Amino acid sequence: MLIVKKFGGTSVANKERIFNVARRCIEDYQKGNDVVVVLSAMGKYTDELIAKAEDINPKPPKREMDMLFTIGEQMSVSLMAMAMESLGVRAVSLNAFQVAMHTTSTYGNARLKRIDSERIRHELDDRKIVIVTGFQGVNKFDDYTTLGRGGSDTTAVALAAALHADACEIYTDVDGVFTADPRLVKNARKLDEITYDEMLDLATLGAGVLHNRSVEMAKKYGVQLVVRSSLNNSEGTVVKEDVKVERMLISGVALDRDADRIAVMGLKDEPGIAFKLFDCLAKKNINVDVILQSIGRHNTKDISFTVSDKDVDDAMAVIEANKARLNFEDVQCSKDVAKLSIVGAGMMSNPGVAAKMFECLFNEDININMISTSEIRVTVLINEKDAERAINAVHDAFGLSE
Amino acid sequence: MLIVKKFGGTSVANKERIFNVARRCIEDYQKGNDVVVVLSAMGKYTDELIAKAEDINPKPPKREMDMLFTIGEQMSVSLMAMAMESLGVRAVSLNAFQVAMHTTSTYGNARLKRIDSERIRHELDDRKIVIVTGFQGVNKFDDYTTLGRGGSDTTAVALAAALHADACEIYTDVDGVFTADPRLVKNARKLDEITYDEMLDLATLGAGVLHNRSVEMAKKYGVQLVVRSSLNNSEGTVVKEDVKVERMLISGVALDRDADRIAVMGLKDEPGIAFKLFDCLAKKNINVDVILQSIGRHNTKDISFTVSDKDVDDAMAVIEANKARLNFEDVQCSKDVAKLSIVGAGMMSNPGVAAKMFECLFNEDININMISTSEIRVTVLINEKDAERAINAVHDAFGLSE
Repeated sequence: MLIVKKFGGTSVANKERIFNVARRCIEDYQKGNDVVVVLSAMGKYTDELIAKAEDINPKPPKREMDMLFTIGEQMSVSLMAMAMESLGVRAVSLNAFQVAMHTTSTYGNARLKRIDSERIRHELDDRKIVIVTGFQGVNKFDDYTTLGRGGSDTTAVALAAALHADACEIYTDVDGVFTADPRLVKNARKLDEITYDEMLDLATLGAGVLHNRSVEMAKKYGVQLVVRSSLNNSEGTVVKEDVKVERMLISGVALDRDADRIAVMGLKDEPGIAFKLFDCLAKKNINVDVILQSIGRHNTKDISFTVSDKDVDDAMAVIEANKARLNFEDVQCSKDVAKLSIVGAGMMSNPGVAAKMFECLFNEDININMISTSEIRVTVLINEKDAERAINAVHDAFGLSE
Repeated sequence: MLIVKKFGGTSVANKERIFNVARRCIEDYQKGNDVVVVLSAMGKYTDELIAKAEDINPKPPKREMDMLFTIGEQMSVSLMAMAMESLGVRAVSLNAFQVAMHTTSTYGNARLKRIDSERIRHELDDRKIVIVTGFQGVNKFDDYTTLGRGGSDTTAVALAAALHADACEIYTDVDGVFTADPRLVKNARKLDEITYDEMLDLATLGAGVLHNRSVEMAKKYGVQLVVRSSLNNSEGTVVKEDVKVERMLISGVALDRDADRIAVMGLKDEPGIAFKLFDCLAKKNINVDVILQSIGRHNTKDISFTVSDKDVDDAMAVIEANKARLNFEDVQCSKDVAKLSIVGAGMMSNPGVAAKMFECLFNEDININMISTSEIRVTVLINEKDAERAINAVHDAFGLSE
């Protein structure tokens, strides 16, 4: 078997944990498997690097930021190789240049295009455990890029696809995918299985267990994922195309406090105005999420949408800069909002799921600012102060603890 | 003009110093020059990395050690690029893969073979300051290598040669090359000029201002070096083929406390025995320095030699492992020794220089363990406890303070 195992920053945060991971990998290796390990930067090291950069330059160029970021994973992989060697197992660490991991050009938010598997196969044939830097790639200019936060998951899935791995295990500091974040909802329950689509919505919506691109890629290439804990041997959650167990109405509730709302008011009510607005944001690589358009006063319209906290300043700047072209009266930004979502393939065949959610929030006297739905998801924007109360109420209302 | 400027770890140890270096480089850039900057890892960061590695694995594999080491310079160059950009100047950082810096295969002690200059020229043509990681290279296996301590000097000289630079400035935390280490000898005097050969002997012998390989390379490619302080604007020392000023008898006194002595005793007095001994050390890439062979008792001979402190354990292990083949009675190792050397092109035409040194040490009642000489150098091995007293006495005896 060829197994790809990915461990996040928490799992390699110190010497003890590094050896813990090393031993887990060696266990599989000694059963005769080929083992490829993908690592993130240690603990909060990426945050330390951001602080170091911003101390030098409050707006560091993204190209140089990626150059700085990539040292985090390189530290993890070299130390891991040393740990494995000290346990008597041959290992080799590889960075994005050595693999090589080809990505698109965008610094800070690149997408993997192609992975060369030759070097890895060569090292595996030589019976080494291969330890690869997650999160990073190399673009056509021969510059380092990074895949955005959580990108190591994507690296692992892409490697599993490129190497036709038999298993892809994503290790994390929780036991698997839960019906809600256990830190927020005491009665949250671990799921044994979940579909790619549900996971995708949970990832996108801030459940925080898996990076959304990694799930998209797993779905695209049919890579079956297991999300499990690096701290114990519990079974984890399998992410795959179809799940066998009888479906609950919904699978989980996700909360995203990272969302900010921008409202552009008094836009002319004429064709193309939404296009112009979102086009200028897209050109700056700003991802826009929930969008709401409503009729304003005096023949105008208002457009509200959410962006993630890291993009909100850029987004406001772009809109202000295009004020003449977009021709609006006012733009406002609100950071005290949160996105609450319910997700479940089961809701496709059960009308009334959204209504049940709204009813529950009404009973709790929680105001809904915006609503957005898809086939397997209902998302509402609420005030951040209500967030924790809301997720618990919705989790209970759908009987997810049982 | 194309100027290569190299700054050591002390010069980029913190934010303030990084900006200090950035401003010095920008000054040259704004005069219309092309500027290539070579940096070492910040402050004592390389030592921190060693400690991190040894905590995981007391004998870390050298290949992985180099993988870990290279992050130090990558941190320096990316932060420097950010600093320059914040001062309004376009800059780009490049690592050994990006340049590319081709080296021999030996991890931890590789030699530069070839530097591709295309990427650097392209960035210079684009009017960017180019900031290159010193100390690191890439070998034929596509693995990181490092050039050994002080290797950033070599990187700078090799870049100056490859780019046909008009100047190569090595910035350090001292004002230039001194007649002796000013921390040890209060009256040490700065030299305005020195020849490659003298510098080579001073570097090899532990004066610690320039890495020996960098001087060898400068000599080979005729790259004129300037060694100067990053902390002030003093003129520094020019290192070149010939110096114009009237020659002192000797140029400087160097002390190397890093030397350890190994004595192999009771070797059979037959041909080939020295070859066998040093061949097995060479195969382990252990550099042997001063060698002394003497007649032992009962038709045997003793061979003593020095190795640097980092190699002494490996050397002892190799010798013990080859005991049967080498057929000796005993091997001893002494770490409490130091190498004291006088260097000067002037001694070629002045007999009696060595005698003067020995007389001076005799007057100070300092015992000499071993002696080695070359055309422009006399080296003695003394007890480490006498080292500081010895260097001051010799410095005075040759009138170097005047």
